Amino acid sequence: MIGLSSYAGVMESLMNCDEEQQPSSPLTNSWSKNQDSGKNQKPKLVGGFVLVHAGAGYHSESKAKEYKHVCKRACQRAVDQLKAGALAVEAVAAALVELEDSPFTNAGMGSNLNLSGEIECDASIMDGKSLHYGAVGAISGIKNPVLVANRLLSEAQKGKLSAGRIPPVGRGAHDWAVSHGIPPCPSEKMATKFSLSAYKRNKRKMELAEKIDTGHNQAKKRRQSSENENGSGCLDTVGAVVVDLEGNVAAAVSSGGLAMKHPGRVGQAAHYGCGCWAENACNMNPYSTAVSTSGCGEHLIRTMLARECSAAMQSEDAHQALLEAMQNKFISSPFLASEDRVLGGVIVLRCCRCVEAPPSQNIQGILVEFLWSHTTESMCVGYMSAQDSKAKENRSHKTGLFICFTPVYFLHVPNM
Amino acid sequence: MIGLSSYAGVMESLMNCDEEQQPSSPLTNSWSKNQDSGKNQKPKLVGGFVLVHAGAGYHSESKAKEYKHVCKRACQRAVDQLKAGALAVEAVAAALVELEDSPFTNAGMGSNLNLSGEIECDASIMDGKSLHYGAVGAISGIKNPVLVANRLLSEAQKGKLSAGRIPPVGRGAHDWAVSHGIPPCPSEKMATKFSLSAYKRNKRKMELAEKIDTGHNQAKKRRQSSENENGSGCLDTVGAVVVDLEGNVAAAVSSGGLAMKHPGRVGQAAHYGCGCWAENACNMNPYSTAVSTSGCGEHLIRTMLARECSAAMQSEDAHQALLEAMQNKFISSPFLASEDRVLGGVIVLRCCRCVEAPPSQNIQGILVEFLWSHTTESMCVGYMSAQDSKAKENRSHKTGLFICFTPVYFLHVPNM
Repeated sequence: MIGLSSYAGVMESLMNCDEEQQPSSPLTNSWSKNQDSGKNQKPKLVGGFVLVHAGAGYHSESKAKEYKHVCKRACQRAVDQLKAGALAVEAVAAALVELEDSPFTNAGMGSNLNLSGEIECDASIMDGKSLHYGAVGAISGIKNPVLVANRLLSEAQKGKLSAGRIPPVGRGAHDWAVSHGIPPCPSEKMATKFSLSAYKRNKRKMELAEKIDTGHNQAKKRRQSSENENGSGCLDTVGAVVVDLEGNVAAAVSSGGLAMKHPGRVGQAAHYGCGCWAENACNMNPYSTAVSTSGCGEHLIRTMLARECSAAMQSEDAHQALLEAMQNKFISSPFLASEDRVLGGVIVLRCCRCVEAPPSQNIQGILVEFLWSHTTESMCVGYMSAQDSKAKENRSHKTGLFICFTPVYFLHVPNM
Repeated sequence: MIGLSSYAGVMESLMNCDEEQQPSSPLTNSWSKNQDSGKNQKPKLVGGFVLVHAGAGYHSESKAKEYKHVCKRACQRAVDQLKAGALAVEAVAAALVELEDSPFTNAGMGSNLNLSGEIECDASIMDGKSLHYGAVGAISGIKNPVLVANRLLSEAQKGKLSAGRIPPVGRGAHDWAVSHGIPPCPSEKMATKFSLSAYKRNKRKMELAEKIDTGHNQAKKRRQSSENENGSGCLDTVGAVVVDLEGNVAAAVSSGGLAMKHPGRVGQAAHYGCGCWAENACNMNPYSTAVSTSGCGEHLIRTMLARECSAAMQSEDAHQALLEAMQNKFISSPFLASEDRVLGGVIVLRCCRCVEAPPSQNIQGILVEFLWSHTTESMCVGYMSAQDSKAKENRSHKTGLFICFTPVYFLHVPNM
């Protein structure tokens, strides 16, 4: 694992040391791996790469193992899909379902409860090939909000959703989902022992703060402090980015939102350009890019961080591009000038088709670069290539802005 | 009225011919006007300019007079506020209230009914000075959704809304509004005779289409045709952009959404970067810009048209910049590649501080350029300067893309 930190930073790996070993020249090495595994390649273009996150925020030591496992399972789910010939957008949805199903993440099952003690989720998904997008906001009673977003996306792709008949929020989104065969799930089944006890604790704190309130400023300070306290443990939105062997990218994100949020609040996970972004390479853009974000919804919305990072990744040096995007478009953004702390994290994937040496053999492939960056205390990520199926999971810690740039992968595309 | 159309276009003025006369050199002329009216200037920096729209879509001849009147009243409301010393953001909210209150526009009172026969509105407002933004989506039972968006914005500016406690959608937004002193209004009072009969007509059409449906494609065609039929008359979202005499800009937008939309659907009017945008000039940007959009919500969201137009307006030639933005970022946008028709319109304001001739007198002022553009059949706009208080209203028609570039205004800023 090569960790390049632009600031003093410590990256803690949760994986075994053997797994951590990376070739000094990953391109060459992954090429030889591909050559070996290439013997068993199916004639169809199946394969790809996935990068997932279990949020930028604060991840306690006690649950480190769980986060590692859920990232690994999510990667495996996406890779299973890719190996079965699924497109990037299907694989990314599969990864998200696994992440939502974990009671340890703040998405789907075990999401934070809002001020009224209910679960309301946001999710979105974007397909870099068609540039279609699906999103749901403040949806209750659906176990996997990403499936509703994905269904909206596929209906849009089929041309079944004519202008404006898109139901992204609240009760309407729930009813639409159920009428399209997505089963309802009672809210009480989605709450966990952990999320319920956190709700009760927060509620008590807020009531106490209201009672002993002697002025606006004091109340404000208490409210903020209470939220930050909750928030630090509750920014664990989940997301994933995928590239398939045809070179299509896709991105998705899902979140239960901040603890004690107002009912009806919609965060970045349901906002176009803010929670996720995916764009295949085109005439103007040499790279395909996919981004998924996590952190304080308001900060991510007001800076449109997913789209900004995606656009930045068209520069030559991926590491420098992400560093500058996080510095200039997020931390020093004029849109967040009044904020004391800017909280967010991104996972980024960029790829391009290329010809691998030796050129005489005209071996085609996809060059995959992936990065993550966060301003929060920690961020959990995992990644896996369908060509070796070894999961790698990391929990990075930082002081200041942390950017990790992992080695380049080369996905061998067999001649058809 | 000078109308520059880049394509064959006819612009019909609804105003008297006398009012239409514009000086061949508007800068010089408006300067002399300012000099005259300058005698009665208050010592405070009060004044400014407003541009409003009653939607891009299709505006019937029979209601032309009503559209003209509501645009005029909205301009007057904003100008009254500006003259009373209000900032741009307060003036833009005042204009929106007037536009929402008209039963002829598709915002607030008289909004389109959704599939369930209910009114659900979207609105947002942005302050170019603080770059704060407030939005509500799919809100029912509130006469003036823009006031809820504005209240969210001002709470955010006061620092009262800590991270994530923002309630932009549905029932939660309604409850938050009422708890903050905005009176509820029963949905049935917001529906008009016109919107109710349109709902019944559309409902019958849809039921008929379902009944005689013999296959997916036929149903799809009918559904789309029915929607387009409704849609053409129902894209009359409203909006406004304002600059005050301190050079602050603000923008707002409000919409009842498409007729027969799914409950819970949120359109561009509640999407950050899509419905409205306002940014004061800063180190990097020489111009202050404000934009408000109208049209097919999905098209405006996927292209983030408000923000794209705002960014484009930093180029030197405003007319060319808007033309290119509408062509490249909207009509030919890769995000709308699958769409047959791209429907939208924008009003744009850009301003910069400058010194007016003769330089020896060091007369300071704000140079205001304003434009509108639409791909729809028509668009209704009105504008007014607080320094002459004469309203001008226009309904522009087009074949192809229509861009109107009106003369430049010079707002004289008195020496303090």
